[in-house]
Amino acid sequence: MRNFDFHNPTRLVFGQDTIPKIGQYIKEYGEKKVLLLYGKGSIFKNGVYDTVVKSLQEAGLTVVEAGGVKPNPVLSKVREVVALMKAEQVEAIVAVGGGSVLDTAKISAASFYYDGDPWDFYERKVFPKKALPIYGILTISATGSEMNSGGVITNEEEKKKWGWGSPFTYPRLSIIDPSVQSSLPVNQTVNGAVDTLSHVFEAYFGGTKGTLMQDELSEGIIRTTMTSVKTLLSEPSNYEARANLAWAATLALNGINGLGRAGDWASHGIEHSVSAYYDIAHGEGLAIVFPAWMTYVHHVDPEKFARFGEKVFGIVDGTTEEKALKAIGAYKAFLQEIGAPVALSERGIGQEHLDDMAENAVLRGPLGTLMKLNAQDVREILTLAL
Amino acid sequence: MRNFDFHNPTRLVFGQDTIPKIGQYIKEYGEKKVLLLYGKGSIFKNGVYDTVVKSLQEAGLTVVEAGGVKPNPVLSKVREVVALMKAEQVEAIVAVGGGSVLDTAKISAASFYYDGDPWDFYERKVFPKKALPIYGILTISATGSEMNSGGVITNEEEKKKWGWGSPFTYPRLSIIDPSVQSSLPVNQTVNGAVDTLSHVFEAYFGGTKGTLMQDELSEGIIRTTMTSVKTLLSEPSNYEARANLAWAATLALNGINGLGRAGDWASHGIEHSVSAYYDIAHGEGLAIVFPAWMTYVHHVDPEKFARFGEKVFGIVDGTTEEKALKAIGAYKAFLQEIGAPVALSERGIGQEHLDDMAENAVLRGPLGTLMKLNAQDVREILTLAL
Repeated sequence: MRNFDFHNPTRLVFGQDTIPKIGQYIKEYGEKKVLLLYGKGSIFKNGVYDTVVKSLQEAGLTVVEAGGVKPNPVLSKVREVVALMKAEQVEAIVAVGGGSVLDTAKISAASFYYDGDPWDFYERKVFPKKALPIYGILTISATGSEMNSGGVITNEEEKKKWGWGSPFTYPRLSIIDPSVQSSLPVNQTVNGAVDTLSHVFEAYFGGTKGTLMQDELSEGIIRTTMTSVKTLLSEPSNYEARANLAWAATLALNGINGLGRAGDWASHGIEHSVSAYYDIAHGEGLAIVFPAWMTYVHHVDPEKFARFGEKVFGIVDGTTEEKALKAIGAYKAFLQEIGAPVALSERGIGQEHLDDMAENAVLRGPLGTLMKLNAQDVREILTLAL
Repeated sequence: MRNFDFHNPTRLVFGQDTIPKIGQYIKEYGEKKVLLLYGKGSIFKNGVYDTVVKSLQEAGLTVVEAGGVKPNPVLSKVREVVALMKAEQVEAIVAVGGGSVLDTAKISAASFYYDGDPWDFYERKVFPKKALPIYGILTISATGSEMNSGGVITNEEEKKKWGWGSPFTYPRLSIIDPSVQSSLPVNQTVNGAVDTLSHVFEAYFGGTKGTLMQDELSEGIIRTTMTSVKTLLSEPSNYEARANLAWAATLALNGINGLGRAGDWASHGIEHSVSAYYDIAHGEGLAIVFPAWMTYVHHVDPEKFARFGEKVFGIVDGTTEEKALKAIGAYKAFLQEIGAPVALSERGIGQEHLDDMAENAVLRGPLGTLMKLNAQDVREILTLAL
């Protein structure tokens, strides 16, 4: 086990009928004027927008609105939001939506106190010293952004989809009411589950030894996610399945699961490169990339892939190598069972940009920890994923 | 799953050679004069005292010392510590030791700002509005006090061993270097493991349904604890086993494991009553009380006890009732395997105070959630434990 230094200051309010309290919470923390940030309109359909606005108004808060944050959120939107925040001098951000809205809120909260371009933070040219407080209202469980400090933004002009975070960009408070996710389209629930699993895999397969407690936690999150998403395919309004999936998604990336282990994160890097070229959902990209990555690197740590097979799929027969390969096959079969794509071709992606995507993926250096991947490796993984 | 509101602001620094950083951390947070609080001297033997003092001195801090905190820490010591803190006007507490030292630090940190008697907080006569910052240096993994807000103190005069906590008594920062626990006597390692398991059980067996994610986490902590403590019996210096046991102990009671579930806590209540009458280690008391409690209440939720048997001991044959009873038997056998007592008689406790302890246990009302226990129930459980 590696040493670690963990500090997650986010307060998490979880459960049914918790969203109407948001105005009161903000009032108690002391802000009076907030930016209400949201996406492309699902919150109008599921009633969350009305609930939040009513709560903010009843608490006497002044509300400035900015909607239209896209999935795979973009830098141009961040710039627009930051300009509005500065013009209006808001005191906090209320981010209502999924990871895209929360991620946009984080970079915007830091950029509020910075005169230069927000992308400078992503390029590590500057580091924030503070950020506006962020309140999250989660409407889809997937990225874990509601309880961590990180965010991914796409710089459309430069085709860079990068991650960034700071100690100042943890949401102060996030609310998760799993019941509002009952109306999500099936594919979004599935993509969220794949995202959750992928976050766990990045820590689980990073190669660090002597982490029994972490492995147990990872396997528990994996099994819970798989069981819950399968239940939701037939019972989308099953509250317990929604709640367990939501809590699993938060635990997968609130820091706890990764402690004491080197994260790998190559698959995320590759997926970011794919979705910088193609308009593909992050969860879909991960469903496609991860089995290919597993196939390409499993020889470095076959014992861990075999353990994964045993603990998650009950695979106990065969040599270590055989069990490892069966495990990867079983994961691919699970993805197909829940309707996730497992090949680039399923989303109309061919060989056109393989080289570009491979080069793009390693722009900031080789990817991965379990196995260091250069552009050629990435190209081979993408080829496996075709 | 129940709704929950979680906020754990403690920063956790974990791993080898982390203790020498304590002075620097405190300096960065800004305090200049601290109380160094510790127990009965093990920190002199394992070198931790010297490491801490050197680090505090090198950071230029003024140090006031108070030692002699006992296991099952007592109110008279708290009063003495608070008087010293007020006289010296310290700005923070550095608590070096196990749960007893941390628990003493918590009530003392709150009492620093209160003119009345510290026990008033335990009696819920007053509630703190602030507390001095607490820095923890953990030397034995057991209570989880390093990353939660609670503490148990014994009022010797009134024979009350009670728990208390507040949002202000989370340690600001705790350091866990598992390697310093290599020199612990075997029975202390065992007692710590039993304490950890018992914390998990209190949430796991509380009766709340629809908590797959939490159950998975609990079972992971239980398996990790059992595996690690068994390794340590033959290899007390095995770092990975120490690290996994330590991280499991923290996870067992830093709040995460309990979220969304009603805790039971009857067994802790009964043990506190036992150790208010007899000078018995908390872990030993829990090893004795828990199997008796399980036997007495399992009929209320036999499915959960059967699940426990399957997930922890691999028990799959028999009716639900049979599996539940086998599980309780397997847990008792595990306790005996690691050298923990499973009967009051093993610690020389007979029938003398059964009625007194039963009455004392329910002083603040019936115990438990899975099954509400009155004095007669407690007496029967203690009788089962004889």
